[in-house]
Amino acid sequence: MLLGMFDGNDYLAERSRRVNKTLDAVLPPETEPPEALHRAMRYAVFPGGKRLRPALCMAAAEAVGAPSEAALFPAAAVELLHSYTLVHDDLPCMDNDTERRGLPTVHVAFGEANALLAGDALQALAFDVAARTPVPGAAVAIVRELAMAAGSLGVVGGQVADLAALSVRPSETAMDFIHRHKTADLFSAAIRMGALAAGADDTKLRSLSEYAIRLGVAFQIADDLLDAASDAAGTTRAATSCLQVWDVGTARRKAETLIREALASLARAFSPDRAEPLRAIAGLILRRTE
Amino acid sequence: MLLGMFDGNDYLAERSRRVNKTLDAVLPPETEPPEALHRAMRYAVFPGGKRLRPALCMAAAEAVGAPSEAALFPAAAVELLHSYTLVHDDLPCMDNDTERRGLPTVHVAFGEANALLAGDALQALAFDVAARTPVPGAAVAIVRELAMAAGSLGVVGGQVADLAALSVRPSETAMDFIHRHKTADLFSAAIRMGALAAGADDTKLRSLSEYAIRLGVAFQIADDLLDAASDAAGTTRAATSCLQVWDVGTARRKAETLIREALASLARAFSPDRAEPLRAIAGLILRRTE
Repeated sequence: MLLGMFDGNDYLAERSRRVNKTLDAVLPPETEPPEALHRAMRYAVFPGGKRLRPALCMAAAEAVGAPSEAALFPAAAVELLHSYTLVHDDLPCMDNDTERRGLPTVHVAFGEANALLAGDALQALAFDVAARTPVPGAAVAIVRELAMAAGSLGVVGGQVADLAALSVRPSETAMDFIHRHKTADLFSAAIRMGALAAGADDTKLRSLSEYAIRLGVAFQIADDLLDAASDAAGTTRAATSCLQVWDVGTARRKAETLIREALASLARAFSPDRAEPLRAIAGLILRRTE
Repeated sequence: MLLGMFDGNDYLAERSRRVNKTLDAVLPPETEPPEALHRAMRYAVFPGGKRLRPALCMAAAEAVGAPSEAALFPAAAVELLHSYTLVHDDLPCMDNDTERRGLPTVHVAFGEANALLAGDALQALAFDVAARTPVPGAAVAIVRELAMAAGSLGVVGGQVADLAALSVRPSETAMDFIHRHKTADLFSAAIRMGALAAGADDTKLRSLSEYAIRLGVAFQIADDLLDAASDAAGTTRAATSCLQVWDVGTARRKAETLIREALASLARAFSPDRAEPLRAIAGLILRRTE
């Protein structure tokens, strides 16, 4: 394949189709009791967004030299975990959001108790699916990777810091803590889980981790920039934003620097063709900041 | 050791001390950020109750012939999982309980958002700790066992059915579904996880599973009887109860039959001395119904 001819969006669309099939296969059918719970779980997962985290997970496995199928269970596990965090983040006691991707949020559609429990069950299912990775040694490492990213020192810790920052203007350090844990930790887990499923050595894992954290923080900066743009268009959303700390130009430059550093981290352990999907995804994230 | 001389309460107290040490070691310190989250997590776990599920996990490992230490991580994992379910069950959108074991519930003490997130983080930690079981093959099976019991076909499914039954008088079938999933599934997971950590064969696993489910349902019947007794004493609690379906005498007889069957299941694969802790715990649960 010619460098530069790789289409990141085509790659995301194709990987998204595959992970959706796996998600459909691992989620209990809506006809299985308790039906309301299973309907709520599927409503939280489908149709979903771009499936960026699963794509990163599979792209990491491919970079290490495995077929993307080797990372299908870890990829589905990361998406289930991500889906549960969105359901709980939307709850009245958290962000109290009534819409997500143009549809009523889970607690609006199914009630608060069902949303809480659907989120809880999606988290449990994420770990079940992570443990289905075929190689037992890799499966254990993958489960622990996901648990670390999901826990109090990862996504949940970032969410607590995010909520605390809503009441006071956050410092640059606090903002970095929030971006790193609320967002980048799960990017990192996705990528490391894919690499572990493919049997990556320590050098490759380190390079991928450095890429992942920078990519994740850049993604969250882009998200904050997009939220600000839609706020200006009239759809407000209560959330901590890096624009409380930086102006738009500074935020864009930070994201650009992070993406450049992420690509440099990749280049230290991977040839350009092996890393093509990961490079293309970095390019797509950079374009979101524009 | 002489049969009949075994003291179940001493056994529970000693195993509880050991699992408490492990829980203290795996929970992040309160001084680590986010401090409020880590304080809430520890508040949810300590001082705790009798640690019955961890004791069952270790007793199952001992029945199979391993030292109880082989099951310390699975035992701690089950207790972390159980602790998270209590935090979420107490939330305003669920049972809306303000007190548990004589102390304010987590959401009363730390706020609703922190309680939700502390529960979420405890569930993630449970899977991390389950995955620390030293033998990789066993660790994977143990993680999947816990995930099945925790998910929509286990504890969460039972909780959904329980909430649905609050608005209509449940049928005997619905009551059995609730007891089995809300309570017995985690008893079964605890016991099977301990047995898996000890390398149990299929015959022993089957015998232990049959013991576990019957013990779990008997435990929930005893719980319903105790709740009814404390209701009569003036402390009401909104919850589905088997006394909506049976009178007190019928409930007691059901529990006795289940305990007798549980002991018979045990006897099919274990000598009386190997199974002594499991037999003693069954005796303690029977005594709760009196």
